[in-house]
Amino acid sequence: MSLIVQKFGGSSVADAEGVKRVARRIGDTRAAGNDVVVVVSAMGDTTDDLLDLAHGVSSFRGPSRELDMLLTAGERISMAVLAMAVRELGIPAQSFTGSQAGMITDGIHGAARLVEVNPDRIRESVQAGNVAIVAGFQGMNRQTRDITTLGRGGSDTTAVALAAALDADVCEIYSDVDGVFTADPRIVPTAHKLDEVSSEEMLELAANGAKILHLRSVEYARRFGLKLHVRSSFSTLEGTWVIPSPTDADSRDLTKEIPLEQPLISGVAHDRSQAKVTIVGVPDVPGYAAKIFGSLNDAEVNLDMIVQNVSTKSAKRTDISVTLPQDQGDTALQVLRRVQEEVGFEDVQYDDRIGKLSLVGAGMKSNPGVSFQFFKALSNAGVNIDMISTSEIRISVITRLDLLDDAVRAVHSAFDLDREGEATVYGGTGR
Amino acid sequence: MSLIVQKFGGSSVADAEGVKRVARRIGDTRAAGNDVVVVVSAMGDTTDDLLDLAHGVSSFRGPSRELDMLLTAGERISMAVLAMAVRELGIPAQSFTGSQAGMITDGIHGAARLVEVNPDRIRESVQAGNVAIVAGFQGMNRQTRDITTLGRGGSDTTAVALAAALDADVCEIYSDVDGVFTADPRIVPTAHKLDEVSSEEMLELAANGAKILHLRSVEYARRFGLKLHVRSSFSTLEGTWVIPSPTDADSRDLTKEIPLEQPLISGVAHDRSQAKVTIVGVPDVPGYAAKIFGSLNDAEVNLDMIVQNVSTKSAKRTDISVTLPQDQGDTALQVLRRVQEEVGFEDVQYDDRIGKLSLVGAGMKSNPGVSFQFFKALSNAGVNIDMISTSEIRISVITRLDLLDDAVRAVHSAFDLDREGEATVYGGTGR
Repeated sequence: MSLIVQKFGGSSVADAEGVKRVARRIGDTRAAGNDVVVVVSAMGDTTDDLLDLAHGVSSFRGPSRELDMLLTAGERISMAVLAMAVRELGIPAQSFTGSQAGMITDGIHGAARLVEVNPDRIRESVQAGNVAIVAGFQGMNRQTRDITTLGRGGSDTTAVALAAALDADVCEIYSDVDGVFTADPRIVPTAHKLDEVSSEEMLELAANGAKILHLRSVEYARRFGLKLHVRSSFSTLEGTWVIPSPTDADSRDLTKEIPLEQPLISGVAHDRSQAKVTIVGVPDVPGYAAKIFGSLNDAEVNLDMIVQNVSTKSAKRTDISVTLPQDQGDTALQVLRRVQEEVGFEDVQYDDRIGKLSLVGAGMKSNPGVSFQFFKALSNAGVNIDMISTSEIRISVITRLDLLDDAVRAVHSAFDLDREGEATVYGGTGR
Repeated sequence: MSLIVQKFGGSSVADAEGVKRVARRIGDTRAAGNDVVVVVSAMGDTTDDLLDLAHGVSSFRGPSRELDMLLTAGERISMAVLAMAVRELGIPAQSFTGSQAGMITDGIHGAARLVEVNPDRIRESVQAGNVAIVAGFQGMNRQTRDITTLGRGGSDTTAVALAAALDADVCEIYSDVDGVFTADPRIVPTAHKLDEVSSEEMLELAANGAKILHLRSVEYARRFGLKLHVRSSFSTLEGTWVIPSPTDADSRDLTKEIPLEQPLISGVAHDRSQAKVTIVGVPDVPGYAAKIFGSLNDAEVNLDMIVQNVSTKSAKRTDISVTLPQDQGDTALQVLRRVQEEVGFEDVQYDDRIGKLSLVGAGMKSNPGVSFQFFKALSNAGVNIDMISTSEIRISVITRLDLLDDAVRAVHSAFDLDREGEATVYGGTGR
């Protein structure tokens, strides 16, 4: 008998019909002879409704102890309703809050990090014959015992952390698409579903704009050598297996081996959420970088790409370009203007009409032809390149925003990823 | 500095405006130099909405572990939103679930009873300068640590139990009426507010249909010698003080003495929720009562009034009439038909077109004229009496339902309780 952890997002349980469909899926998994632990997000728009309630009485918009208390009502509702729907099928089920499930966190409200997972009650409930249904996204502060939320991607993280702590055989992440695609099917209709992808590639895809799995849950799964199965709650198709590399320090025996001949390229990710800041005419003397990046770091600005080249305007000076989330743009500009005189650079420029395109594939490590083919495809499509950064399994470029979709399709075609009739998108996206 | 526990029902926090009004009320109480602990019910229709959700996926209508988990989301929302609204006024506030507040119960879902109250976290929060806001209606099963609900009147009970455990100076119960009235102002527009009423009288009023306070919370307050202040969240008027009798075993020193000359009569309560069952022609031999009442008791039928008189139809036989909640009528009839042959009675009659009227007053103990005056008033109003039962401080009669309102007004007038222009009803009623 296998233990399967299944995570369902908010769009899968948006209404009574959705809840019943998920309950039947859980029932089918039980009928196939498995123990099942379920992690569920808040139903549909519940989180937005609760935020509206909060904004109706409070002008404070940041995270807080009370906002976490409020938002966690969302999963409390969905998990209890789902447990009732499962019981309606004649299958015993019990729901558990994050704190009951032993999801112990630090004290950062709105973005708490797991410090410990003690799922004793979940284990007991499953051993007693129940489907255990756990609230995603929430935990309990180890010191104060206050309720916390895990922030973006929190429910995926709950599922992966629980699966690891319970030593589950599989962690299934359900959403409204059939799996991980070679590109976003809404932009590239010929994108095809990947049967499997390595954790490393998935990390690069998630970090560079693929929204199907949150970066944090992939990191967690990779660290614990846990297989993820990304699939749709609207179909019974096999999805995409995310396979941890067998060289990971503490990985387990994998029943499914990574194939010897991996495909060259996994897919094309894109990201419209970044902005570019260029610091013009930085004096080329030791110590300027510490001042600039130190002050940005103090202000908790998350830099993504960093590129430096010699300034075209003046000798002995250099230009530095960085990318960062658009909503941190104002903060970054304030910080930079504050240190401008001290550092002695000439100007700061801001541009949020940019897009980031990333080609990801473990095979590109040993294949020098990939980058040539990549840049040729962009050139043929008439796409200018603003910035470039690379890792061993990724090439990313910044382009003009209005050319991004063309660029994605051009690169997708150039690497023979196109296939007809595979892409299906069923609905919205959950938390 | 006093510690005041304030309980606000669902109608007081039905929307953002209500929540803000309650927050200001809390702020005023703090500004007057008091420590404040708040107990709050679910906002407006939240509980009904959650029940609808449950009914959308489950055909089971009874209480359950999962239904309690679901319903407790209601107070979680109201308490967090109220805490935000209080913080918006610049007053530190923290919300706590029933289990965080140490409301420990038995395991009866939907109707759990408190077995222990350990409000350490509430005490700490208040000592740290916070307004502590506690979810009403909910607790935690001592054995399984599952979430439970306290059933009808649960939030009042939470407030009274917390006030007792925290040794609060006052427990204020806020609703949408100005206090305890001599009769229901919707039926008797000349009803007037009582300045104070003894716990015993309040118990009789609550047990006999007055909905302002739940019987259980009055019992709890009486046991712990706790003063209750029943008042409106829509006005700043003094409400009604419910004063525990100084002869109670473990009562405390009362700063407010019960006046020597108590008014004769406190008020007139009525109840439309009962039905009458008459067991006709019971053989007048020893043991029949044990069989009848034993079987009703086994079926958990709650009998209220029990009256026996000689049968008019046949000698050596007797008729027994009982009243019980209408929703237990079917159960009672089934039980009685099952034992009919064994006991040997002739027939069972059922009537739910009845009303119960109760006159309550501590002064009637020592005043034999009360019952004469009571029955004369009913007679003058043309009201026939079906059944009578009495306690030392109460006379109750069963009348035809369509005569009940007339009967209430007639009795209210006969005891000089009428006063013009005092009764105000602001809105609906909470949980």
